[in-house]
Amino acid sequence: MIEKLIAKIEEEHSPIVMGLDPQIELLPPGLVPGELSLESIGEAFFAFNKDLMDALAGVAPAVKPQIAMYERYGIPGLIAYQKTLAYAKEKGFVVIADVKRGDIGSTSKAYADAHLGRVQLGERSVPVFDADFATVNLYLGTEGIEPFRKVCEECDKGLFVLVKTSNPGSAELQDRMAEGKPLYLLVGEAVEEWGKPLRHGSYSDIGAVVGATHPETGAALREALPHTFFLVPGYGAQGASGKDLAGFFDKEGSGVIVNSSRGIIGAWKKPEYEGFGAKRFAEAARKAAEDMREDINSNIM
Amino acid sequence: MIEKLIAKIEEEHSPIVMGLDPQIELLPPGLVPGELSLESIGEAFFAFNKDLMDALAGVAPAVKPQIAMYERYGIPGLIAYQKTLAYAKEKGFVVIADVKRGDIGSTSKAYADAHLGRVQLGERSVPVFDADFATVNLYLGTEGIEPFRKVCEECDKGLFVLVKTSNPGSAELQDRMAEGKPLYLLVGEAVEEWGKPLRHGSYSDIGAVVGATHPETGAALREALPHTFFLVPGYGAQGASGKDLAGFFDKEGSGVIVNSSRGIIGAWKKPEYEGFGAKRFAEAARKAAEDMREDINSNIM
Repeated sequence: MIEKLIAKIEEEHSPIVMGLDPQIELLPPGLVPGELSLESIGEAFFAFNKDLMDALAGVAPAVKPQIAMYERYGIPGLIAYQKTLAYAKEKGFVVIADVKRGDIGSTSKAYADAHLGRVQLGERSVPVFDADFATVNLYLGTEGIEPFRKVCEECDKGLFVLVKTSNPGSAELQDRMAEGKPLYLLVGEAVEEWGKPLRHGSYSDIGAVVGATHPETGAALREALPHTFFLVPGYGAQGASGKDLAGFFDKEGSGVIVNSSRGIIGAWKKPEYEGFGAKRFAEAARKAAEDMREDINSNIM
Repeated sequence: MIEKLIAKIEEEHSPIVMGLDPQIELLPPGLVPGELSLESIGEAFFAFNKDLMDALAGVAPAVKPQIAMYERYGIPGLIAYQKTLAYAKEKGFVVIADVKRGDIGSTSKAYADAHLGRVQLGERSVPVFDADFATVNLYLGTEGIEPFRKVCEECDKGLFVLVKTSNPGSAELQDRMAEGKPLYLLVGEAVEEWGKPLRHGSYSDIGAVVGATHPETGAALREALPHTFFLVPGYGAQGASGKDLAGFFDKEGSGVIVNSSRGIIGAWKKPEYEGFGAKRFAEAARKAAEDMREDINSNIM
């Protein structure tokens, strides 16, 4: 799956992913339901996402729906999540499910089946949420999440394992010095090693999440983990910009996909793009994505 | 919320929780749908859980549905999850949602709203999955999961933070020595401190997950974290028994709730309980839970 992502990034000359993290505050007034209910909000989220995906096709090779934003609205929210994934695949986006799951044994297997693989129904099997990549948490160890790797191998899917997250408090655990190294580096090295069997060309289907808000850490991790592709959150709303990201890329200008959520999907609310007006929120998003692509590309290539 | 759990444990003289982790292989033949589909499996899971809860009332004060087992079957599976939670509350069980969520900022807030709190719909707010406790992952730091604590405070709910998990591979990260201490202890100390504002009597609403498969670690953590209640997985199917658990309890014989999933809900398949037959699977589960209660109580009190 990683080759498919890399090919699409090259084709569109765009190492960016649109974070589809809908919130009521980000909906343009025309999409806010008159009567608020879990159902009406779920429907509005899908309508919002659909317009955004229509506008971003060709500009962003991938989308990253954050499942929490849908889970908040219960079953109707999760229906919107599922419809969003299906529509994204129809439009040709690579789909990164930001689920941050992680458990042990048969439980990890159940999550992997749900989000990446297929579920057995007697003789036949069917996909469920069917993303291309999922984010996972390694606190339970690689043994705990081994079923995810197996499903990736069987179904040609990929993972991004949390290594160094973008939030200020990520230091609390991730920066602890353990055996002479910060913990995030130990986790990163485990990911690099664990991803070995799923290497295709330069990179493995097993990637890592590395926050854009830590430029030096990103550069150090790029050196240490030469075959691990990075999913990089924290651009824009969380404060990082293109010049912070140069070190995350490899010498060929590859190895990274940078996420922006609010910065793209909420662009119509920002002073720079308010000229578009609320009705043209999807065009504002497209322009914000083009600007982001330009900001990143001009710093790496 | 922790007082409610402790009171119920004392009332039933039973520090045990039934893990509601349905799998097709655990269903008695009479409940396996003739035509397997996501819908028919979801319905069968709820029917299975309902009979189990009817049988276990008064024997186990709490249930712990593992959401992955439902998520695997997509929307119909999650409908069964939601119905299971609602029925559990109707029957008076304390409900521990084993979701192992963990993210940052507004994303953690969305998860906390979904699983423990309420979601705002204009002027009014409604609960969504509405569990009493949820399990969370601290790899992103206490700052990342701060919104969970806030929701616990506002809605009188609780958390169990992953500290030392029951799987063999938990050592890979959790046992790393960091600043002179194993990482699980650093995480545990962070939990103890972070849970301080939500202390009621001896214990805090913020508890910890500590695997039964590590008796010495459990005892050491009990010493180190005197106000942190433990949710203990790994009993039975994963190999731990009552004598391994003595050290997890405090001097009053409190501070712990022990989970068993397959050992209870799949009891009808085990040689010890096969006399019940598949049709009386719920009675087999009740007997297995009574035996587990006896095994634990005889080792602590």
